[in-house]
Amino acid sequence: MTTCVVGAGAIGSLYAAHLSRVGESCVLTRRPEHAAALNGDGLRVTGRHEFAAPVTAGTDPGDLPAPELVIVATKATGLESAASTLAGHWPDALVMTIQNGLGAEDIVRRHGDWKLVSAVTFMSGTKHSDTHVEYILDTETWVGPWENTPYARVEEIAALFVESGLEAEALPDLRPAQWSKLIFNATVNSVAALTGLPHDSHFAAEEEPADLGRLVHALVDEGKSVAVAAGIELHDDPWEMNVLATRRGSAHYPSMLEDVVARRATEVELITGAVVREAEKHGVEAPLHTALYGLVKAKEASYMALAGSE
Amino acid sequence: MTTCVVGAGAIGSLYAAHLSRVGESCVLTRRPEHAAALNGDGLRVTGRHEFAAPVTAGTDPGDLPAPELVIVATKATGLESAASTLAGHWPDALVMTIQNGLGAEDIVRRHGDWKLVSAVTFMSGTKHSDTHVEYILDTETWVGPWENTPYARVEEIAALFVESGLEAEALPDLRPAQWSKLIFNATVNSVAALTGLPHDSHFAAEEEPADLGRLVHALVDEGKSVAVAAGIELHDDPWEMNVLATRRGSAHYPSMLEDVVARRATEVELITGAVVREAEKHGVEAPLHTALYGLVKAKEASYMALAGSE
Repeated sequence: MTTCVVGAGAIGSLYAAHLSRVGESCVLTRRPEHAAALNGDGLRVTGRHEFAAPVTAGTDPGDLPAPELVIVATKATGLESAASTLAGHWPDALVMTIQNGLGAEDIVRRHGDWKLVSAVTFMSGTKHSDTHVEYILDTETWVGPWENTPYARVEEIAALFVESGLEAEALPDLRPAQWSKLIFNATVNSVAALTGLPHDSHFAAEEEPADLGRLVHALVDEGKSVAVAAGIELHDDPWEMNVLATRRGSAHYPSMLEDVVARRATEVELITGAVVREAEKHGVEAPLHTALYGLVKAKEASYMALAGSE
Repeated sequence: MTTCVVGAGAIGSLYAAHLSRVGESCVLTRRPEHAAALNGDGLRVTGRHEFAAPVTAGTDPGDLPAPELVIVATKATGLESAASTLAGHWPDALVMTIQNGLGAEDIVRRHGDWKLVSAVTFMSGTKHSDTHVEYILDTETWVGPWENTPYARVEEIAALFVESGLEAEALPDLRPAQWSKLIFNATVNSVAALTGLPHDSHFAAEEEPADLGRLVHALVDEGKSVAVAAGIELHDDPWEMNVLATRRGSAHYPSMLEDVVARRATEVELITGAVVREAEKHGVEAPLHTALYGLVKAKEASYMALAGSE
């Protein structure tokens, strides 16, 4: 199967490299030098897997072979721009979103009539250069249908991922998994962004009244009450996801913390913003997530010249 | 009247300099070179007032003349150590506390039987060197009795401050003013510490759902409900204090923000911690202040090597 990854950060690079083992793997990049490096050197994977992967890269969809599957792997903050680049191209392709938060599918939909596939991924990697990615957590990607996409197509994609060496599972309804990750991310990412702490044992400590785990637990509980109001039965308990992740050894730096350290826009709008909007839509209170949403937005405003701009 | 200021930061230096105009003004410092500089050069005040003030300084209470009034002007984080230095000295002196938050009087009380005076001050200054302080906001110091201190003594102190050129007022019960400042500080200081924003117009903006002023207002309202539960009728509305302060022109950098930027311990324990403890004591909920308390403590933990130590 011919595939095309849009946005080759750490996650996108991991998909593109693995998919080269089961078909022609293309990469749509923003920077011409990124595409040139990939065409020249291919992708090198180290860490959990070690191999070299040939890929075909370009900055214009018109220069690439038409793929059957497009994986939009940009950050949430780059999604609008990536989707607009795809507009008018590859009408028969399946387009898969893997962004954090909620609402990525709707953003892509505004730019074309592709059949859509939702995904959430728990794998992680570190991009050492444009052509070298380290595979750190070889955890699953969960895929599910969006709107009228036949479930058989979703199962086909999950099978393709597994054949390529990645962990994957098809789910008839992705929302329970998406919401589990949403609540986990809204909690862990915003607390990390505000405190400067990586996702370490503080997040699970609940013994003393001032222990951070108590706030984390309260945020998770509040998120779960929003899920209940939205009629979602969670796939995993976000508190258990949190506790497990903090026991993994080396502490992970959540992306929102990386963003505020680098003084970039964060994904807060699609993550914590989604929890706040869902709470409002379903008539439940979410005062803690609302507070953290306001604080992270204000933190962005403290370093971004045009805080009000998109 | 002989007076002694303990801890000559910006506020302590402003008291010591002004009080030299109405009696012998002594300063107890921690650093010997600080005392030597003050003995050699005196204090220079610029800004709202411009004058030079002779002071007598030392690092040991035993080396200084016995004062009638001691003003403990350290930050809340230095109070325990300052009070222990005074233990066993000057039993006839009045000791005045001006720390942010609640509980300073109790800390001093544990080290001696002095008659105590409570104070809150709204003046501000910038210390340019050990012997030069700029007087920026010439706002009032409010003083009140603590335990069985006769109110006449409090009025005497307020009159002394006014005679020295400072703004001051005696209040039979200081708690309404102390709580107004407590709620203001718990809100503004912790939001500033977490977001990196100085106390600017963001804190008063309430138009859009994500505007920071909405969170600030909710924090103030929660603080006011704690005050009601504690039986305190506030002297000033902390929300109005907030709005007024943001209109002052140049944005103020709250001390907790300065502390986290300099990676020092903050006063969160005596400020936000006091709100949280009072809420618990009086059986009301304070989820937002509790959240901010946990976040600021976690932020301290992110940069302090021995986060658990005192």
